[in-house]
Amino acid sequence: MSIDAQVLSAHQAWLEYRTWDRSKVVALLEAIADSLDGAKAELVPVAMAETNLPEPRLTGEVGRTTGQLRLMCAAVKDPSYLDITIDSADSTLTPPRPDLRMKTLPLGVVAVFGASNFPFAFGVAGGDTASALAAGCAVVIKVNPGHPEVSRLVAAKMIAAAKSVGAPDGLISIVEGVAEGMQLVKHPLVSAVAFTGSTHGGRALFDAVNQREVPVPFYGELGGLNPMFVTKAAAAANAKAIAEGFVGSITMGAGQFCTKPGFLVVENADAIAAETQAFVFGAPGQKLLNPQIRERHDSIRHEMSNVPGMTLVAQNMHGEDTAVSVFRISAKDFLFHRKQAQREVFGPTAVIIDCASTAEYMEVAHSFTGTLASGIHGVENDSTIPAGLLSLLEQISGRIVWNQWPTGLAVTWAMQHGGPYPASTNSLFTSVGAKALLRFRRPVTYQNFPQGLLAAELRDGSAELKSARVNGK
Amino acid sequence: MSIDAQVLSAHQAWLEYRTWDRSKVVALLEAIADSLDGAKAELVPVAMAETNLPEPRLTGEVGRTTGQLRLMCAAVKDPSYLDITIDSADSTLTPPRPDLRMKTLPLGVVAVFGASNFPFAFGVAGGDTASALAAGCAVVIKVNPGHPEVSRLVAAKMIAAAKSVGAPDGLISIVEGVAEGMQLVKHPLVSAVAFTGSTHGGRALFDAVNQREVPVPFYGELGGLNPMFVTKAAAAANAKAIAEGFVGSITMGAGQFCTKPGFLVVENADAIAAETQAFVFGAPGQKLLNPQIRERHDSIRHEMSNVPGMTLVAQNMHGEDTAVSVFRISAKDFLFHRKQAQREVFGPTAVIIDCASTAEYMEVAHSFTGTLASGIHGVENDSTIPAGLLSLLEQISGRIVWNQWPTGLAVTWAMQHGGPYPASTNSLFTSVGAKALLRFRRPVTYQNFPQGLLAAELRDGSAELKSARVNGK
Repeated sequence: MSIDAQVLSAHQAWLEYRTWDRSKVVALLEAIADSLDGAKAELVPVAMAETNLPEPRLTGEVGRTTGQLRLMCAAVKDPSYLDITIDSADSTLTPPRPDLRMKTLPLGVVAVFGASNFPFAFGVAGGDTASALAAGCAVVIKVNPGHPEVSRLVAAKMIAAAKSVGAPDGLISIVEGVAEGMQLVKHPLVSAVAFTGSTHGGRALFDAVNQREVPVPFYGELGGLNPMFVTKAAAAANAKAIAEGFVGSITMGAGQFCTKPGFLVVENADAIAAETQAFVFGAPGQKLLNPQIRERHDSIRHEMSNVPGMTLVAQNMHGEDTAVSVFRISAKDFLFHRKQAQREVFGPTAVIIDCASTAEYMEVAHSFTGTLASGIHGVENDSTIPAGLLSLLEQISGRIVWNQWPTGLAVTWAMQHGGPYPASTNSLFTSVGAKALLRFRRPVTYQNFPQGLLAAELRDGSAELKSARVNGK
Repeated sequence: MSIDAQVLSAHQAWLEYRTWDRSKVVALLEAIADSLDGAKAELVPVAMAETNLPEPRLTGEVGRTTGQLRLMCAAVKDPSYLDITIDSADSTLTPPRPDLRMKTLPLGVVAVFGASNFPFAFGVAGGDTASALAAGCAVVIKVNPGHPEVSRLVAAKMIAAAKSVGAPDGLISIVEGVAEGMQLVKHPLVSAVAFTGSTHGGRALFDAVNQREVPVPFYGELGGLNPMFVTKAAAAANAKAIAEGFVGSITMGAGQFCTKPGFLVVENADAIAAETQAFVFGAPGQKLLNPQIRERHDSIRHEMSNVPGMTLVAQNMHGEDTAVSVFRISAKDFLFHRKQAQREVFGPTAVIIDCASTAEYMEVAHSFTGTLASGIHGVENDSTIPAGLLSLLEQISGRIVWNQWPTGLAVTWAMQHGGPYPASTNSLFTSVGAKALLRFRRPVTYQNFPQGLLAAELRDGSAELKSARVNGK
């Protein structure tokens, strides 16, 4: 089927799907989750062969993926995403106020671009797909070329599950190919795009979408440098634990996470650097997702190693595996060579920035821009947190972590996964957690409508109205 | 002061303003509202001289403007815009869940572009400015060239009011000039742009903002065709009242409203067209805002009159005033010449589309795209509403009106002023009403934070937490 025919079919399916009761949407999401949970044994080996990721990780990831779908069921059962808001008619006002009833409606067909590093959780049945379907949208999913087989398999399961609950044909479908993906985002019947991947690829799609005659929302999650700041007190008290946590975090998923802490900022880094060595040497072998990703990682690591002043703290070797590498650079060199030094490396490579003074430390802090996460390692009642550091992190981050590491994302109601560009192309929304579905709905106000023409949830006395804002309250 | 220095000053001011308690933000908004209310007698004559708008309208508009500022006070007093969401730590989960506390934070410096047609309500102290300040942002406002004197005067009042409550210098400022406006939106320290005006001007700024190295949110409200659909039953029963309402709506503000109903779609328009004549002839003189706007209106009206099949229903003349013009065209001709016929005319000109069948009527309905508003005129328990019409209007509109007219916008909690492009560049938000401030805040999640480092409202036992979502409830 051509992309055009496929989007047309998705749009036709959406015209029916948008009228579904919330209970039917929940049934669809549950059917998909059940189907994937039941197919773990079939899915995981295919993903292992395509991604080099180990079995326990992938088995856990299927669980996370179906957990995301089930969290979306909870989000749809709760009417808050409808944002129902009522202002009653009031003829005593000047001018008189008509009856106004607002709720959100789904946008239409959503194009989803899955990521390479999570074949399930950010794959064809991943968070973007779950939230678009939960929002009442149809999806056309561009398969990530890093794991096409498991993507096709998951898509087939989803489509069968959708059929089993009576979903219209075309509600869920996949496309493959770079040119096809570009054609997809330019299609006039695509109403929103969700993307998880590289800054380069994301920006190209973002630009294409904004150049459309009719631009549509583009939700790109492009990654982050996720700098972590160690206070003087913490560096003195907890050097070993911090070094252990840092190496653990940059090697989780072989460092192929958008939340990997790429930079550790320390005032006098000697102790932490020394402790880091042992943990790097003790880290297990790192297998990257595929040869292309490994090549790119090794090439950027090589460029990083050539930045003037960049020295190696430690690098381990495990036969054919990718090395874990921690570099170190002075704040002065880092700031002077910022363009080459301040880069995201997709893989188990990170940099300790060694500051000679608090002034330098804050200058380094100020050099960072939009990031998914950032964090502070401190001690209890820490008096050595530089003034202005937290305020600065608030200005650049979607999430700020205290005495933990940014990897390992909870999928909850209070999660914000999205920060100022280049972390996200739209930092007002999260791409992970219950609120991710809000990206795919927009408000519509019904003015002076008779009860009979209103949707059930907007009628006087509806269950949903009980938790709604009525006349400002 | 150069634009660069001005934005820098706004950013510095913002760094202080973002730390203000909500009560101080409310005091600032109230001081501005009080100051403008007290200056009505001084402001209105200046606006009259610049805009041709009559005194009662402008006096009312100052009231609407201060009403908007006061509604924002209510919005800031209510903690819902903080969107506080908490998930408690839970070590029994796999993986264990850390303590997560989310709230929204202000974006930074907002560039505001005021409109020509509302020197106050969409001017320098208009809804965009009110909502940006309420959100905790600094504003740099591009003055509309249609009313520079009153804009400078209002800005001076705002700046003095801000000073009176201790606001930092630079929190509110204005710029003038097209090139300066473009420089403003490209400035790296501008974090969002709000624009009300033409599709042409808005798109140029939208494109510039998206081409920035770091794109930022662009909230453009670009207008609408606001088609109104008359059912067969209503056309038969209420032709005179509909004609009267239609002419009243297209002449309100001399038709210079983004909510003007540009098209009236009727199956067999004879009766309504006949009734329309008298109301057009009885309509008062229409003075457009300025000679440039009049020239453009007259030129587009002329082009419309030359669309094949377009005939004049009625046109009145009042000396030097602009004529009120209602055209009529068959659905066939409209659809065939859609590119020339389906245009927004800024001024008192509108078109009745005459459909020979329900099939044609629905074809016309399908030809409309994103619009701020749309509507249906029907009768009680109307069995002549074509199937699919309401669903279609939901897909293209931000607001749908039943048996009323789209002009005359209530500024409330339930208002949605914003629809799919080209109505707005971001249809997920409203530019009018209490929720307009949500455009200028983004969520940040604090993970595993000690109580002492959290903002007061995120701490255990805070007043704001009482209405927050905690552990999904």
